[in-house]
Amino acid sequence: MTVALYPGSFDPVTNGHIDVAVRAAALFDKLVVAVYKTPPKNLVFTTEERVKMFKEAVKGYRNIRVVPYGELSVKFADKLGAKILIRGLRMGSDFEREFDMALMNKTMAPHIETLCIMTSADNQFVSSSLLKEVIAGGGSIDNFVPDHVAIALKKRYLARKT
Amino acid sequence: MTVALYPGSFDPVTNGHIDVAVRAAALFDKLVVAVYKTPPKNLVFTTEERVKMFKEAVKGYRNIRVVPYGELSVKFADKLGAKILIRGLRMGSDFEREFDMALMNKTMAPHIETLCIMTSADNQFVSSSLLKEVIAGGGSIDNFVPDHVAIALKKRYLARKT
Amino acid sequence: MTVALYPGSFDPVTNGHIDVAVRAAALFDKLVVAVYKTPPKNLVFTTEERVKMFKEAVKGYRNIRVVPYGELSVKFADKLGAKILIRGLRMGSDFEREFDMALMNKTMAPHIETLCIMTSADNQFVSSSLLKEVIAGGGSIDNFVPDHVAIALKKRYLARKT
Amino acid sequence: MTVALYPGSFDPVTNGHIDVAVRAAALFDKLVVAVYKTPPKNLVFTTEERVKMFKEAVKGYRNIRVVPYGELSVKFADKLGAKILIRGLRMGSDFEREFDMALMNKTMAPHIETLCIMTSADNQFVSSSLLKEVIAGGGSIDNFVPDHVAIALKKRYLARKT
Amino acid sequence: MTVALYPGSFDPVTNGHIDVAVRAAALFDKLVVAVYKTPPKNLVFTTEERVKMFKEAVKGYRNIRVVPYGELSVKFADKLGAKILIRGLRMGSDFEREFDMALMNKTMAPHIETLCIMTSADNQFVSSSLLKEVIAGGGSIDNFVPDHVAIALKKRYLARKT
Amino acid sequence: MTVALYPGSFDPVTNGHIDVAVRAAALFDKLVVAVYKTPPKNLVFTTEERVKMFKEAVKGYRNIRVVPYGELSVKFADKLGAKILIRGLRMGSDFEREFDMALMNKTMAPHIETLCIMTSADNQFVSSSLLKEVIAGGGSIDNFVPDHVAIALKKRYLARKT
Repeated sequence: MTVALYPGSFDPVTNGHIDVAVRAAALFDKLVVAVYKTPPKNLVFTTEERVKMFKEAVKGYRNIRVVPYGELSVKFADKLGAKILIRGLRMGSDFEREFDMALMNKTMAPHIETLCIMTSADNQFVSSSLLKEVIAGGGSIDNFVPDHVAIALKKRYLARKT
Repeated sequence: MTVALYPGSFDPVTNGHIDVAVRAAALFDKLVVAVYKTPPKNLVFTTEERVKMFKEAVKGYRNIRVVPYGELSVKFADKLGAKILIRGLRMGSDFEREFDMALMNKTMAPHIETLCIMTSADNQFVSSSLLKEVIAGGGSIDNFVPDHVAIALKKRYLARKT
Repeated sequence: MTVALYPGSFDPVTNGHIDVAVRAAALFDKLVVAVYKTPPKNLVFTTEERVKMFKEAVKGYRNIRVVPYGELSVKFADKLGAKILIRGLRMGSDFEREFDMALMNKTMAPHIETLCIMTSADNQFVSSSLLKEVIAGGGSIDNFVPDHVAIALKKRYLARKT
Repeated sequence: MTVALYPGSFDPVTNGHIDVAVRAAALFDKLVVAVYKTPPKNLVFTTEERVKMFKEAVKGYRNIRVVPYGELSVKFADKLGAKILIRGLRMGSDFEREFDMALMNKTMAPHIETLCIMTSADNQFVSSSLLKEVIAGGGSIDNFVPDHVAIALKKRYLARKT
Repeated sequence: MTVALYPGSFDPVTNGHIDVAVRAAALFDKLVVAVYKTPPKNLVFTTEERVKMFKEAVKGYRNIRVVPYGELSVKFADKLGAKILIRGLRMGSDFEREFDMALMNKTMAPHIETLCIMTSADNQFVSSSLLKEVIAGGGSIDNFVPDHVAIALKKRYLARKT
Repeated sequence: MTVALYPGSFDPVTNGHIDVAVRAAALFDKLVVAVYKTPPKNLVFTTEERVKMFKEAVKGYRNIRVVPYGELSVKFADKLGAKILIRGLRMGSDFEREFDMALMNKTMAPHIETLCIMTSADNQFVSSSLLKEVIAGGGSIDNFVPDHVAIALKKRYLARKT
């Protein structure tokens, strides 16, 4: 059984992340979405919230699991028996950063491969950070995230304002 | 009447920004420079100071107005009846970021166009953040900003040291 | 009256080019699409064919004219009284090349401005050269060019094969 | 059975290509290396030679096949029942070009995924075109290609000189 | 006597930095490694620690000196009589930032040259920031820094955890 | 005595090249400008012409020599006893290509260092290929090349037209 790991902070999950997860899940026996336990100061949602929102977004897919993690991606992959790390690339990605990480991971864990999937054309310009700016400025993000995420994000920013 | 909006944080305005504003003002009936009300923690100058400095820098130009704003650029453009957003591009710009924003704006406001102007050769390597480093290190920035900005910037950094 | 010039080789015109032309035409009084008379050896279509195909594609737009030209873009702009050069940028553009040209043009003709428009999300990955590869390989390009261009391109490649 | 296709011109195969092929073959049931039948004028080796050299390089791997092809990669993938296209990325890759191709392929064949593998650190700066320059200038390429390729390449360039 | 200055924050020094320093020292009479006195909040090590670690790393090289500094690089170069600034470039460098700085420095101090050295292939993907992530996640960085740095870094992160 | 080699095709030499050569010559005992004997089909000037034009441009500098060469740069450097290769970088440079070459050269000749100098701000957007386009289109290049080069280039293009 081939297990692939898709790590990230997903703060929050966007249609772009979901697209990558679903496409990766179609290629391998099992996909584990791993939500990184970042210290919450720079994030909008807690680890639990981020896990829950991603779970909700992929609940129709039987071979996708969503879990939190707090160590190096390659270490977590080893625990799960995953030999593949999935990265979604957008045109707006920091390619050099992706390379540095992939090559560093290869050094630490030569038996694990990083595979990159290009985000679909519709989601090329959608990043979590841009969505947060849009909603902070009063814009609509309904086309870029699932409904439950749009609602949660609006609530969070309204709460901040008051 | 064609109104164009040139949004930014302008902390502080540089000769590069002025060059873009003046050139854009020559192409359209009216140019509104919109100074974003960023939370002051990461900035050197308050919104009022940033507006005032840009105003002073373009006071000879009758069709340029400088105002503060605090919402999405496209929303503010709509209020003003502006159908054009101006962005100045330097070689050192984050193009991918510019693309993400332009395409996101297009989705939110299809009737508004983002037009990019290349900063002139002399100002290609001048960014507000680099100028702040230079002045913090005791260097001279007189060639890169108007006199009143150089004076204000020096004063601010001297005050910080003591 | 503000005249803008949109120069290129357009071999052949794509939906991306048309999108840029139509959006630019909405901002200025008149848009002149200028088709460069490149020596035909590296091109699929003659200058006349390229002009004709672009004309057909924008025939519904009263303020768009399509003409051939054979000199520097800024010189041709001067002849037409155009003070604006339009460039369409895709994520896949050669930004450095665009900068070099824009700054060189500024040196030769300081009174002419280059304005860049970001190609719409749908057309980000569509270039004339890629379309030619696709059709040479037997693929369909119907979503990326107008019908009359798709037909002309297929005909040309079929003719080459036999 | 999951079949992956690794298309390219491989003129000639380098250690970087072999590294990508071997790592991809470890992830999927079968890897088909597809050598594109480019018109020979711009290439050093014929399609037959390029196929033969790649075959020799991976002869120890039972689930790698090397074949020539002359159509769109996605069409050839369909013929083979491959649902994965493999691309090797070097830091020096033309990322924008890779994106354009991946998104175009996705439009033409939504059921096929492009997966990118980062070339290993040792082979980051090795490209077929650079190797050809090195050997044309009298340098040694023994560290960057298998022996049989180094010999063939030297022979070819010696023949050209005389 | 030609003196070159190699400025940076070196938090901490990596094998990549050492490689650049040693290679630069071989080209000039004297190399001064200048460790910037950054406000410690964003750094892992104090200025003194960073100086000490770099000193230890290059103690075998007689023409390398390591000192702290707190002003503009070009000002410090003038004090030392250095007419050369050394910058190490990795593929993952922010080239635009390097350009901005080099051109700004040239404006402030036309008599000082910035020379860039490409980091060796082995160290292309090693940055101080990435190493800190690796060690925070429990990974090994022994191949990328000298022993004394690895030990200091582990100690620091263990201390943080408790 | 430290000898540095500055290799290129210089078709023709621009003010940017001269700027790099003069600045490099100030840092080392001797600078050898090496003009590559490219097959003339893709070039405007013969090797002899290119050498002669560069010589004329730097005739006031006693420690600059200009010579043709036809082998690998590192091999030619060895012949001359040069341990430094100089490369001029413009913002518009192909950095990845520069990296590939520098790392390849390091593999072939570990005792030779590649040092990159950033072209001055004035010459950032000036490349030989762009100048050729400008002059082919009837533009003036007098600000970007020495007089004798401007004259030679105009003559060559006029001759082509008739």
